[in-house]
Amino acid sequence: MANKLKVGIVGGAGYTGGETIRLLLNHPHVDLAFVHSRSNAGNPLYAVHPDLLGDTELAFSDSIPAGADVIFLCLGHGESKKFLQDNPLDANAKVIDLSQDFRLGETSGSRAFVYGLPELNKAAIQQASNIANPGCFATAIQVGLLPLAKAGLLKEVYATGITGSTGAGQKLQDTTHFTWRANNISAYKTLTHQHLKEIGRSIHQLQAGFSEPINFVPWRGDFTRGIFVSSCITVNKSLDEVKAIYRDFYAQHPFTVVADETIDLKQVVNTNKALISLEKEGDKLVVHSAIDNLLKGASGQAVQNMNLMCGLEETAGLKLKSIVF
Amino acid sequence: MANKLKVGIVGGAGYTGGETIRLLLNHPHVDLAFVHSRSNAGNPLYAVHPDLLGDTELAFSDSIPAGADVIFLCLGHGESKKFLQDNPLDANAKVIDLSQDFRLGETSGSRAFVYGLPELNKAAIQQASNIANPGCFATAIQVGLLPLAKAGLLKEVYATGITGSTGAGQKLQDTTHFTWRANNISAYKTLTHQHLKEIGRSIHQLQAGFSEPINFVPWRGDFTRGIFVSSCITVNKSLDEVKAIYRDFYAQHPFTVVADETIDLKQVVNTNKALISLEKEGDKLVVHSAIDNLLKGASGQAVQNMNLMCGLEETAGLKLKSIVF
Amino acid sequence: MANKLKVGIVGGAGYTGGETIRLLLNHPHVDLAFVHSRSNAGNPLYAVHPDLLGDTELAFSDSIPAGADVIFLCLGHGESKKFLQDNPLDANAKVIDLSQDFRLGETSGSRAFVYGLPELNKAAIQQASNIANPGCFATAIQVGLLPLAKAGLLKEVYATGITGSTGAGQKLQDTTHFTWRANNISAYKTLTHQHLKEIGRSIHQLQAGFSEPINFVPWRGDFTRGIFVSSCITVNKSLDEVKAIYRDFYAQHPFTVVADETIDLKQVVNTNKALISLEKEGDKLVVHSAIDNLLKGASGQAVQNMNLMCGLEETAGLKLKSIVF
Amino acid sequence: MANKLKVGIVGGAGYTGGETIRLLLNHPHVDLAFVHSRSNAGNPLYAVHPDLLGDTELAFSDSIPAGADVIFLCLGHGESKKFLQDNPLDANAKVIDLSQDFRLGETSGSRAFVYGLPELNKAAIQQASNIANPGCFATAIQVGLLPLAKAGLLKEVYATGITGSTGAGQKLQDTTHFTWRANNISAYKTLTHQHLKEIGRSIHQLQAGFSEPINFVPWRGDFTRGIFVSSCITVNKSLDEVKAIYRDFYAQHPFTVVADETIDLKQVVNTNKALISLEKEGDKLVVHSAIDNLLKGASGQAVQNMNLMCGLEETAGLKLKSIVF
Repeated sequence: MANKLKVGIVGGAGYTGGETIRLLLNHPHVDLAFVHSRSNAGNPLYAVHPDLLGDTELAFSDSIPAGADVIFLCLGHGESKKFLQDNPLDANAKVIDLSQDFRLGETSGSRAFVYGLPELNKAAIQQASNIANPGCFATAIQVGLLPLAKAGLLKEVYATGITGSTGAGQKLQDTTHFTWRANNISAYKTLTHQHLKEIGRSIHQLQAGFSEPINFVPWRGDFTRGIFVSSCITVNKSLDEVKAIYRDFYAQHPFTVVADETIDLKQVVNTNKALISLEKEGDKLVVHSAIDNLLKGASGQAVQNMNLMCGLEETAGLKLKSIVF
Repeated sequence: MANKLKVGIVGGAGYTGGETIRLLLNHPHVDLAFVHSRSNAGNPLYAVHPDLLGDTELAFSDSIPAGADVIFLCLGHGESKKFLQDNPLDANAKVIDLSQDFRLGETSGSRAFVYGLPELNKAAIQQASNIANPGCFATAIQVGLLPLAKAGLLKEVYATGITGSTGAGQKLQDTTHFTWRANNISAYKTLTHQHLKEIGRSIHQLQAGFSEPINFVPWRGDFTRGIFVSSCITVNKSLDEVKAIYRDFYAQHPFTVVADETIDLKQVVNTNKALISLEKEGDKLVVHSAIDNLLKGASGQAVQNMNLMCGLEETAGLKLKSIVF
Repeated sequence: MANKLKVGIVGGAGYTGGETIRLLLNHPHVDLAFVHSRSNAGNPLYAVHPDLLGDTELAFSDSIPAGADVIFLCLGHGESKKFLQDNPLDANAKVIDLSQDFRLGETSGSRAFVYGLPELNKAAIQQASNIANPGCFATAIQVGLLPLAKAGLLKEVYATGITGSTGAGQKLQDTTHFTWRANNISAYKTLTHQHLKEIGRSIHQLQAGFSEPINFVPWRGDFTRGIFVSSCITVNKSLDEVKAIYRDFYAQHPFTVVADETIDLKQVVNTNKALISLEKEGDKLVVHSAIDNLLKGASGQAVQNMNLMCGLEETAGLKLKSIVF
Repeated sequence: MANKLKVGIVGGAGYTGGETIRLLLNHPHVDLAFVHSRSNAGNPLYAVHPDLLGDTELAFSDSIPAGADVIFLCLGHGESKKFLQDNPLDANAKVIDLSQDFRLGETSGSRAFVYGLPELNKAAIQQASNIANPGCFATAIQVGLLPLAKAGLLKEVYATGITGSTGAGQKLQDTTHFTWRANNISAYKTLTHQHLKEIGRSIHQLQAGFSEPINFVPWRGDFTRGIFVSSCITVNKSLDEVKAIYRDFYAQHPFTVVADETIDLKQVVNTNKALISLEKEGDKLVVHSAIDNLLKGASGQAVQNMNLMCGLEETAGLKLKSIVF
């Protein structure tokens, strides 16, 4: 590839911003042109992301230079919409938004957004100029359900998921106080998690008549990274038939793997992978799925979308060493 | 109370044995007469349970002295049955067995066992000579479901539960290696956990015609103590009506509390309490329940049963300081 | 004992306040008369300390009722001094202050404070009306050094200590954000920790001519409770001679135990014990000491001081079940 | 670079073996030719290292194919020596041994080993055919002390270090049981850690007359990855002078960074970096150093040595995304 992509990040001081920086700094086809953060303008990136000490001398900027090929918006929910209204970007700059502002079909001016789940929309992503990057729980749940939906087999779902503390963001909160969260488990947004809407849209895209509930109970976990979900569905197919459906669905998707063995969360932590394991008793199928909420659930998937939009290899810059232990 | 109970423990070197020792050493109405462990006979208790250093000079014994009022069997599954066959105990010694050997109506010679869940069987426990102490997940799930069963409202259940590593016992295993388990989540015995049998028996005791599945997915958590379960059931009553049913059911049970607020696991860790929280969306009820797997899920409930069998105050020796943080 | 002590807590919403509540609620000789907290007045204790749900219906008060036998001040550093100035207490109410306001000989009006380390000052505490309760690191370090000082053997000390997150208090801070602190280690206040002053005073009390530095490096640990310190000192005595010195020093102190075996932090977590282990290579002695920072390092020691001041058994209400796992 | 290096791993089933695999699979100039493991021969790598599922279909081999350019020995201590005796390798295959068998000048036949700490021996490593890769604690301590030794300023050292559980290896042990290690701290090998020998050799290489003790207390930490060390030394230079000495020493070393800010362990976890922070009070210097024990402390440094031996860029394949959270 002759020239590197000129890429910028808006909102680079948060968790997904930092994670996007980490990925882009080592991406073979990217020149990280700027990282925008009003509150940190002028400070080196490592002042906010101290693990970058020794890796880069780049500083936060307070302006959006012209000429970027791709811009990642790593802003809070509601802020991306406002940012695009207030800051007209180059018309030909591709935008990848990590917030939830455009996941349900919303537009911004002439920018229409494709829902950036490659396992669902790869062809559309390759043609897209603007991506609404999926939510973390939404990604973990969808990779576990979409093959059934495509096969027309999805029925009412009972899912429980657990997420690391990074899912709650950088802001200090009672529920991310170490003293409270260490060794603790709690439920929140029982049956009302906001990601259910984008999950519903994706399922309808594949199984139009689906009208049953996705009953989802999210838990806060006492770890920092990762999401693990177990979903229970009534399915009148054998385990082998179901596995074949899943394997077929994911045949062309390099990061999503259907395991024959039991899986655990740390197999995917610090990687862009999604792992799926299937078990069946009687007519009940249980789908376990695991991702890193900041990578396949956010920044990693965003870079994967960039790769697809820009004609790069889908895995470029995303062959990450797992933390494993 | 004039005389203290003379109490012994068989199998005192394991986790539930150690926890039972800790409770009985501080119990106001108990004289801990002996702690039996063949492999550790002669060694002080603190050689195996080093937190007891400075608390007691008692040593493990290799015999079962006569004259005990109550004997706790803290043996592995299958071993209690064998122990009672090989070691005829005083006929009037009460036995509390923490294994699963007698939970489904099994007997040993003339000894018939009452299932020792006070929230279900308090009156029978008060008259019993032998107790089959419930399983840890079984306790956490049952306290969440029994009020519905008594009201005849229980339908198919979808439950996910997470347990600390102490649930897997003292033996070194791949799944209790620190390097693997730290920051990790995994599922096991999906839909096939052995405690489903004792749960089923209890439900039938209250709602005779119940014939639907309890779909239960257990997870291994990255903490040492505690169980948290979320169970989802279709219920055609309002949340207030359901809460009233639960509060009424637990009115006479000092350790089981229905919270108005959201609950978290550490509220109960290192206590004998069971906490329940109820949420409802549409016709779906979610019951969250939390216990300490070694206390209300094992040794604490065993001591609670001893208190009931022996006419003591139900909470004697069980007002424990929570770890809380 | 005929009558229970009437005891109150000022500043009951913080960590040490909560821990003092937990201890006093179960103390056999105490009637917890009031828990003062301006900001939480009227709310039940369990609104702030949710582990107390089901244990007590007591609410926070906004006044200090007359007639208390003992008042615990669980306020921030600097606030106790101000509180005593602004709120004249009954002259015959004993005061136990958990802040650092009175540890260096400060007075408040006619109230003079005894430094409340029973291992150093038991006789004085038994006669005292006002106690300055020691700091957590100060306690852990002192129990490791005082026997040497009494023997006139203390020389320059090199100590490293690690503390749980509860040592940093309830306030949300960057260093207690779960995402940052989990699995992390960091140093702070290197060689400048504020507890060095009270340690210095105690050493001089026993070894008047001591003039060498206590070089102390504190670390933040990725756990919630406990302090572990290793101190290295040049000592020209055999290990057996040193052990004899320590054992003799602690012979009359029920909570401080010199172990023959290696020790670990969790042996003391959720107890009021201090454990000490001694190792020697050449002329270097290493003293390992471990306490629970909220108990022997704060609220537990405060209750121990109350017991001593009030003529109760030193261990009353403090035979706590270790978390152990 | 025209051709990739043909590289093999002996002992690929352990922690350092797995970590070396992970690095080499993504190394731009390496073809991972074989991974030897007698006990796992024939099984896919992901059967032992499940995080590799989806990354490679390579299987363990039971033979050592000829023609390797570089062979990593990831065997237990004592086993490398034996392996080289029993398995004559190609004379021109470079060997990098991760055990402690050759760190003190030992040879195997005609193979003489260079101690592979690039910060100490970069020029010799570039010429070497055989490398003895340093120990993990040895690396962390040495990067903190060598600049002082080169300046002739090193005096008696008092160091405390804490290590993650991966330092104890894959074998199940009481001290790596999750239930024991979670939230726990303990000391081991007080003043007698085996790495003191290799540290002593390196110091003498730079400061020939050094004859004072390195007093080192290792602690077991309740995390999986990383080492943090604080070393205290009497130094009669200003902090600025000392910083200049350290910065000068590390000017040509891409992975070792002297921070102006305080450091924490997670800045380096899952990277090959070593971070150093310096603080001074009076005449006491405290050096904090942090590495990932499996990377800069083992496999990462081994690959760094390979890069140097083979004329590759020193950082090739080692620009790793930090876990950071």
